Amino acid sequence: MWVLVLGADGYIGFPLSMRLANAGFNVAGVDNFLRRKWVAELGSHSATPIRLMSERLRAFEQTFGRKINFEYGDLRDYDFVEHVLHEYKPEAIVHLGEQASASFSMMDVDHAVLTQTNNLVGTLNILHAIKEVVPHCHLVKLGSMGEYGVTNIDIPEGFFEIEYRGRKDRLPFPRQAFTDWYHWSKVHDSGNIMLACQIWNLRSTDIMQGIVYGTRTDEMVNDYLLTRFDFDAVFGTVLNRFCAQAVSGRKLTLYGAGEQKRPIISLRDAIQCIVLTIENPPDKGEYRVFNQFDEVYTITEMAEEVKKIANKLGLDTEIEFRGNPRVEAEQAPYYNPIHEKLHQLGFRATHNLEEELEIMLTDLIKYKRRLTTRKAQIVPEVRWTVSNTVHECEGE
Amino acid sequence: MWVLVLGADGYIGFPLSMRLANAGFNVAGVDNFLRRKWVAELGSHSATPIRLMSERLRAFEQTFGRKINFEYGDLRDYDFVEHVLHEYKPEAIVHLGEQASASFSMMDVDHAVLTQTNNLVGTLNILHAIKEVVPHCHLVKLGSMGEYGVTNIDIPEGFFEIEYRGRKDRLPFPRQAFTDWYHWSKVHDSGNIMLACQIWNLRSTDIMQGIVYGTRTDEMVNDYLLTRFDFDAVFGTVLNRFCAQAVSGRKLTLYGAGEQKRPIISLRDAIQCIVLTIENPPDKGEYRVFNQFDEVYTITEMAEEVKKIANKLGLDTEIEFRGNPRVEAEQAPYYNPIHEKLHQLGFRATHNLEEELEIMLTDLIKYKRRLTTRKAQIVPEVRWTVSNTVHECEGE
Repeated sequence: MWVLVLGADGYIGFPLSMRLANAGFNVAGVDNFLRRKWVAELGSHSATPIRLMSERLRAFEQTFGRKINFEYGDLRDYDFVEHVLHEYKPEAIVHLGEQASASFSMMDVDHAVLTQTNNLVGTLNILHAIKEVVPHCHLVKLGSMGEYGVTNIDIPEGFFEIEYRGRKDRLPFPRQAFTDWYHWSKVHDSGNIMLACQIWNLRSTDIMQGIVYGTRTDEMVNDYLLTRFDFDAVFGTVLNRFCAQAVSGRKLTLYGAGEQKRPIISLRDAIQCIVLTIENPPDKGEYRVFNQFDEVYTITEMAEEVKKIANKLGLDTEIEFRGNPRVEAEQAPYYNPIHEKLHQLGFRATHNLEEELEIMLTDLIKYKRRLTTRKAQIVPEVRWTVSNTVHECEGE
Repeated sequence: MWVLVLGADGYIGFPLSMRLANAGFNVAGVDNFLRRKWVAELGSHSATPIRLMSERLRAFEQTFGRKINFEYGDLRDYDFVEHVLHEYKPEAIVHLGEQASASFSMMDVDHAVLTQTNNLVGTLNILHAIKEVVPHCHLVKLGSMGEYGVTNIDIPEGFFEIEYRGRKDRLPFPRQAFTDWYHWSKVHDSGNIMLACQIWNLRSTDIMQGIVYGTRTDEMVNDYLLTRFDFDAVFGTVLNRFCAQAVSGRKLTLYGAGEQKRPIISLRDAIQCIVLTIENPPDKGEYRVFNQFDEVYTITEMAEEVKKIANKLGLDTEIEFRGNPRVEAEQAPYYNPIHEKLHQLGFRATHNLEEELEIMLTDLIKYKRRLTTRKAQIVPEVRWTVSNTVHECEGE
């Protein structure tokens, strides 16, 4: 059985490809290396010294005796997408090939348009190509818990039954995404995928993923097999950025009270979830939504956990509260997303935040020099919008 | 006060521009004439013999003594959009400049991508340019009642208060649009506009408009001032197409039982609503939704009304039931959209379906030759998707 991993050069994409290959799937990765280009353009780099894709794949084969195929190309090019599907006839496609940073999408109109067109056109092309070439294929799409935004009621997994004016219906949970064009591009994708399942009888799992953190999966047994680790303000996710700050001897910077609650999951457990999703496909015509996260922390609690483990490892880490947030941001809003479906499929988290942080920080200490070069410092630490919101990268 | 009308060459755009100019607004229209190009590419034409924009505007000035400005350009070009906003500093912008046909969006992947990128990028550019140039400007965006799709509960105007698992919140009404990429592009636009109001404190009215029908507004006192009237399967809306079939001596074709209920509004009353919306802007930072329609009919009832009036005017019109729809399409689903806000602003429909049909059919009889040329007949009458859905144009 062939599985395509779109965005196979990415933070999740590369270790997922290795895991799937070791689990016995035939794996073909696709990437156009845009993330490498964008990070370089920002004047930053991955904290881990990642190798070229050709070197990574050779090292993987030498280490584990399993081959991963790779196709270079852009998902915005329909002919390329259709060609790859013809070539492999995949039974599952994991779509991680999107621009994943909220900050990036908020830089200016060009980045807003680039984010939304890149993400929508890629997904539209994939849906059309699946319909034409492999209509039974299972599309596993990486969305974001941020698609739901923050609401005062429980957040179900995609759909809920409600009563209004005395009548009932099962409806999609209303999306009012976090405050950036990136998260809305994910909402738009979700609508498009739901439509394709409805009119073309396709099958898809739309994964609302929490913030992913970590440096490591079991396959990373040598430096050639490391995944990227972004720590700049644009592509670094919040926990990863805190760890980079701790290791490089900087303060952990918090804007406002940091009382926003966020769902999180370690890299290795996110990959466990995606593999489970592939192993348990939905029915033909079914569009289903999984809320994929393990724990919920406030941003302040995340910083405190990082500080605690960093101190334990001998790092002299402090938290600095900055900024002058709006009053309403000072209160912790209600936040209770439901996450049962992956547990029903057998998901069990292997590492909680505290355990994974110790591994992460130990890993990052090896690359401390790369976190403290001039290159790393020229990146501004956080971008703000008119509404004083801190935008995070989703870490795909 | 300047008002920009984006899509000023269109079915609603041109008569709206005339109405606004006669109501005392300074009006500048924008268009790139893509609708004319697309209809020509389909081998069809407008039933009414519409003139070039330059001729239309000269005739309007000679007739009413009011000048309408015009700027040729593409809303996907940010520099053009920003330039126009700098030039006019509008207090209101009516955005009708989108690809408005569901059928067009369903032709193939290229048309799907064209529809969604054209509509999203245009709206993203407008939002960014408003933020930069005229942050107090009121954006009046033409959306579609089709954004809501069909649900078993009442459809409020954009937002509703619901209770779920014992907690309450006011949320956007969940969108599960009609089954095509066009309607979803409108849903995506709505999300993007809601975000811009939230983060940039812009103001917007998102109009969920029913199917528009009619040939006429009071300004159309001579042939130079007619608006376009599309009757082909791609850009013709359902009532307009029935009237064209009746006048050209064809049967009114119905696919399936035709029990789907659809909200409708005459062209002149749609324009009345848009003018009222401009005259009553929302507060700074407010994103509000109006459900803009007058009556609700099933497709079969529409055909029967057209047949009745056509027969009264001496036309020998019959209805033909075709197709083999899915069983679930045979039953009339519950459909009860609320429409109160425009009435609260003073909207009163001037013509119901029966009254307007008599005017329309009488108008179209004058152009019977244009409805029966070979040009008009080479267009297939209806396109079908896998799910047997008939896709309609929104008639912008």
